[in-house]
Amino acid sequence: MKIHGSPTIGNPRRVAIFLAEKGLEIPFVPVDLYSQEHRTETFLAKNPIGLVPVLELDDGTFVSETMTICRYLEELHPEPSVLGRDPLDRAIRDMWQRRVEFGFYTAIRAYYRHCFEPARVLEPVQIAEWGELNRTLALEALRVLNSQLAENEFVAGPDFSAADITLVTSLQGTATTGFRIPEDCPHVERWYGEVVQRPSVVATAP
Amino acid sequence: MKIHGSPTIGNPRRVAIFLAEKGLEIPFVPVDLYSQEHRTETFLAKNPIGLVPVLELDDGTFVSETMTICRYLEELHPEPSVLGRDPLDRAIRDMWQRRVEFGFYTAIRAYYRHCFEPARVLEPVQIAEWGELNRTLALEALRVLNSQLAENEFVAGPDFSAADITLVTSLQGTATTGFRIPEDCPHVERWYGEVVQRPSVVATAP
Repeated sequence: MKIHGSPTIGNPRRVAIFLAEKGLEIPFVPVDLYSQEHRTETFLAKNPIGLVPVLELDDGTFVSETMTICRYLEELHPEPSVLGRDPLDRAIRDMWQRRVEFGFYTAIRAYYRHCFEPARVLEPVQIAEWGELNRTLALEALRVLNSQLAENEFVAGPDFSAADITLVTSLQGTATTGFRIPEDCPHVERWYGEVVQRPSVVATAP
Repeated sequence: MKIHGSPTIGNPRRVAIFLAEKGLEIPFVPVDLYSQEHRTETFLAKNPIGLVPVLELDDGTFVSETMTICRYLEELHPEPSVLGRDPLDRAIRDMWQRRVEFGFYTAIRAYYRHCFEPARVLEPVQIAEWGELNRTLALEALRVLNSQLAENEFVAGPDFSAADITLVTSLQGTATTGFRIPEDCPHVERWYGEVVQRPSVVATAP
């Protein structure tokens, strides 16, 4: 197996942290988004929608989508579990991962892609009003996560999970935008201070 | 168990079709989005981000997010399978579901929500330029799906799956916008003609 994507950037980094947490090693083949490598014919043959990461199996099968790849690898190697130990545990962790992905990650990504000049190569039609609206939506999402983290060590409960991976990579990935965890989210700040010190997060830092 | 959401609309409908395909019956409790019922304190106690559907378990646990609910129910009732029979089968179906969800559904939903007056209650800040851009993105996504459907009976391969559910509900749900399958997507048209006749799709039609 190998993974197409750069293990210190964006969604491929989510898989890299997941692998480190599970003690799995799969080589990464970097893909340079800023030189549009993901839009070449060679890459589109691996994933027709031009997104990283892509897991390439030994028989040449390609599997893309971050969480799809993680779920597939968790099924092959259940322990140590990152995605949950029984159906309800998996559901709760998956629900929170989606809340982070849909609520915070998608919003903060839109803020960066629509409001910052270096992102123009990734987002040819930048709409500043849409970007600014998403900055507000990202803050709203963070307040929901703050309430959850007031009562839980990690985003999805007592265990570190893919929800934490998505949140920490989103927060670190947007550092250049000047976005900061707001003062009314002290529980997110507490969680962030702890999670950025995990070996899997340190090892893949951008 | 019960499901909060209206079984003929949007994401709750995806779960309703999934249940019908599996021969499962779980009662739905309608939630009226246009009267903002999903933003009441009562509903936010079920899902703090205010989205339907929400599965309520008999012990009072709430599980939200459409695909999370479907995966949970598929784990409890594996047959007949809608999400896949082994790890790789599940991965391929999940990948295509995400491609439909992220590529087509999200785009066509943004087009409706940002460009049509009745959607203003759902999307208080409408940005027409963003909506129009998403109409273009939805067409691009449909062309990728057209290539896939040229060689496969269903979106994710030989079996009907959640990828088909997401696509057919997205297409039917946007009928009022005037969006039509373009002429350069004949394989999507062939697939659509077949899938709209499935009993699960007919039974939940809006």
